[in-house]
Amino acid sequence: MCVNPPPDAVPGTPEGCAFLVGAGPGDPELLTLRAARVLAGADVVLYDALIDPAILALARPGARRIDVGKRCGRHAMSQAAINQLIVGCARDGAVVVRLKGGDPFVFGRGGEELDCLRAAGIKVQVVPGVTAACAAAASLQLPLTHRGVARSLHFVTGHGANGTLPAHEWAALTRAGGTLAAYMAGRTIAPLAAALIAAGLPGPTPAVAVENASRPNERHVFATLAGLAEAIAAAAPEGPMLVLIGAVLDRALVAEAGALARAA
Amino acid sequence: MCVNPPPDAVPGTPEGCAFLVGAGPGDPELLTLRAARVLAGADVVLYDALIDPAILALARPGARRIDVGKRCGRHAMSQAAINQLIVGCARDGAVVVRLKGGDPFVFGRGGEELDCLRAAGIKVQVVPGVTAACAAAASLQLPLTHRGVARSLHFVTGHGANGTLPAHEWAALTRAGGTLAAYMAGRTIAPLAAALIAAGLPGPTPAVAVENASRPNERHVFATLAGLAEAIAAAAPEGPMLVLIGAVLDRALVAEAGALARAA
Repeated sequence: MCVNPPPDAVPGTPEGCAFLVGAGPGDPELLTLRAARVLAGADVVLYDALIDPAILALARPGARRIDVGKRCGRHAMSQAAINQLIVGCARDGAVVVRLKGGDPFVFGRGGEELDCLRAAGIKVQVVPGVTAACAAAASLQLPLTHRGVARSLHFVTGHGANGTLPAHEWAALTRAGGTLAAYMAGRTIAPLAAALIAAGLPGPTPAVAVENASRPNERHVFATLAGLAEAIAAAAPEGPMLVLIGAVLDRALVAEAGALARAA
Repeated sequence: MCVNPPPDAVPGTPEGCAFLVGAGPGDPELLTLRAARVLAGADVVLYDALIDPAILALARPGARRIDVGKRCGRHAMSQAAINQLIVGCARDGAVVVRLKGGDPFVFGRGGEELDCLRAAGIKVQVVPGVTAACAAAASLQLPLTHRGVARSLHFVTGHGANGTLPAHEWAALTRAGGTLAAYMAGRTIAPLAAALIAAGLPGPTPAVAVENASRPNERHVFATLAGLAEAIAAAAPEGPMLVLIGAVLDRALVAEAGALARAA
């Protein structure tokens, strides 16, 4: 039975339900209070590969925890199988939490899971989460928007079908101004940077790659757009990577230099 | 003394510190666990006008709570005065929490507060938050990105200097594809929609205005881009407003129709 019923659920009916829950960027403390509450009432938790064990520990002791984790190129379970599993568990009467990194609706394929749940007539609620760009910005103390520097913010995915770079509107992205955040760009940064430069973004534009944003093993690679792919390759990242590009980075480099100077 | 010292603070020193904390979109349950912990250790909380009393109640009983709230055109305190107040309280040895709606670095002027704190040599940490677009998307059950429909997401502010519409790169925004989220667009939606249409975005593009995202008084106004300003005016909104524009909205309308059909 659904112990955390969505508002339109009928109280007392022994029907299952599903929650698409954003687990945030990685740090367990960046979970929302609602995500923690929903987890505590879950019968089944289907979680991504990079969800911290401390987050899974918030689910009640008897809950089934199922790793449906996907890492680049190594799918533990296909998206279709995940969709079927959520629907099947909810049909069996379980409160199902689909726990997803970041926010469910920012490059999370939450929409596909939602579609399947709706088609099956399952009650569903969505719990938003802190997205990786905000977490990386907080760690770097780097405003994503800043008066006089960036008044817009653009999220793109670096990971398209078969893991290749999607055909974004490079010229438009180049001319839009503001800050560019490329998600899941670890394996496609070379063609992504080349596409932006070919479309007119200057090679010296400052950039930073953030690996494992908000986790204890968070790492940053600062470089120019032109030098970013080589710099990332040298750092040999293994965790999820977000790339931020734009003039706000000039500020970060200056601030970092200032912090180093103060510490000296 | 700083009871929640940033990692580089020297333990035992009676120095103040500051936290720039994202309070999320409004619903107290969308606060992060870290924000709640930091609030519990605050000596002084400087908060925006729209922060829910239930969030302020998380600060310890003896904490000073200072409303520095700003609503469109009615500034309780200038940004410069806020900056000085944060620095002054931290210099007096207080643990200062600057509690900001949404995420501190997405159209929140957190960068300006950060600059002042750094210039004053105050230790500072930033706690990211759930941004309004993610909260609105969760409420609407509307994926911001979706395979085959939108693989990018663009945030712009509708509120520039003196409350007028900023001069965004309209042609680029129109051609970038993906979903467009306009923050603080309640007063500038007419020129914003006109600029997008003049730049080539079709007038029938679906859009939704979300007032008070994630709060009990959340309201939605669905319209085409061409009809949005009139539809919003008819709804006479008073709370903060986010506007989402793009093909993902076609899905939401269909889904809403489906939900109504199921409920009937």
